[in-house]
Amino acid sequence: MPDKPKSERTRVRREPNRGQYDRAAIDAVLDDGIVAHVGFTGHDGQTYVIPMLYARDGDRVLIHGSAASRLLTTLAGGVEVCVTVTLIDGLVVARSAFNSSLNYRSVVALGRARAVEAPAAKLEALRRLTEFLIPGRWDDCRQPTESELKATLILEMPLDEASAKIRTGPPADEADDYALDYWAGVIPFAKGTLEVIPDPRLKSGIAMPAYVRRWKRG
Amino acid sequence: MPDKPKSERTRVRREPNRGQYDRAAIDAVLDDGIVAHVGFTGHDGQTYVIPMLYARDGDRVLIHGSAASRLLTTLAGGVEVCVTVTLIDGLVVARSAFNSSLNYRSVVALGRARAVEAPAAKLEALRRLTEFLIPGRWDDCRQPTESELKATLILEMPLDEASAKIRTGPPADEADDYALDYWAGVIPFAKGTLEVIPDPRLKSGIAMPAYVRRWKRG
Repeated sequence: MPDKPKSERTRVRREPNRGQYDRAAIDAVLDDGIVAHVGFTGHDGQTYVIPMLYARDGDRVLIHGSAASRLLTTLAGGVEVCVTVTLIDGLVVARSAFNSSLNYRSVVALGRARAVEAPAAKLEALRRLTEFLIPGRWDDCRQPTESELKATLILEMPLDEASAKIRTGPPADEADDYALDYWAGVIPFAKGTLEVIPDPRLKSGIAMPAYVRRWKRG
Repeated sequence: MPDKPKSERTRVRREPNRGQYDRAAIDAVLDDGIVAHVGFTGHDGQTYVIPMLYARDGDRVLIHGSAASRLLTTLAGGVEVCVTVTLIDGLVVARSAFNSSLNYRSVVALGRARAVEAPAAKLEALRRLTEFLIPGRWDDCRQPTESELKATLILEMPLDEASAKIRTGPPADEADDYALDYWAGVIPFAKGTLEVIPDPRLKSGIAMPAYVRRWKRG
């Protein structure tokens, strides 16, 4: 696929050298994230940005989360949304304040989200959301009841208008600034997990599953 | 300050027990973040959500980042924005898929952002942005030139209509589900930093500053 924006409105304008448009780059960012920031305009004309759990499922993004009620009132058969996923990798400490920056990977995806409504499709979407977040969990948990399914809002959005923006590497200082006596470098953020905390009410004799012990992103 | 929403549109509707409205709670979340997701509606009517560096500066939020050109075309003296900061703390692995969740802290702030334009105010805002991200850095870096100042877009938004939403602790399963034989618990995400990477072009003899070595959030 040519590495060109799918639309003018997803073209990376500022720092265009950081823009990436091929699906492999976009998928790699999406598959490494946990929370998407979903933006939409409410009936009141106000823009809202709500953090939501999501999953990439092939050519669509599934979103699912706590804004359900507000999103629901906005929905009415489809709503234009912007789904942004950002992973922050490190602080870029340049010699100049101006060139100090962040190493990050982000995806901005635009499109019309619609509710997944058919029960079988909804169940499959929930399976995908669960497995995206914790691979191995779906077959090792209590799956949704009919009334839980009804109480759940899942939106799907086709992943056909998106761009990634990625910054990696050391600071990019002005040529003259390399002679200055200021320290420069990158402070990388830790990834991974701390020690897992079993539920205080865990029944005795239930071992921590391997998919929990080994959980990681990236 | 009474712990009530400042406006109907910032009231937490879903899982209202997670809503917090006092400024101390809001500030604590903002002060622990690095990137804000800034939502606004473009001239084309499309909602965009862009990750930007930000700082809390007393009663205002300063935002600053890579969407400058698109935001600039939208600005025209003030633009309604939604600034959302989300910190993710851990995966909540409940016995049921339905109650599986995320431990997180988020703030949603609404308001009209306007550009900081006066050079002295802009310089002070940049100082605050730098110090918010890396305390101690401003006096130990090359400060902005006049032309760099001109090339920088900084927005400020009063922090007077915001809410926080926070989930902590173990899974909250249905009463009957505690008898099930599924593992449950929390997978906390690592915070902190990995080993700092000095710039390969660092001049010899420049020691890593203490404020870099000790940098942390939270």
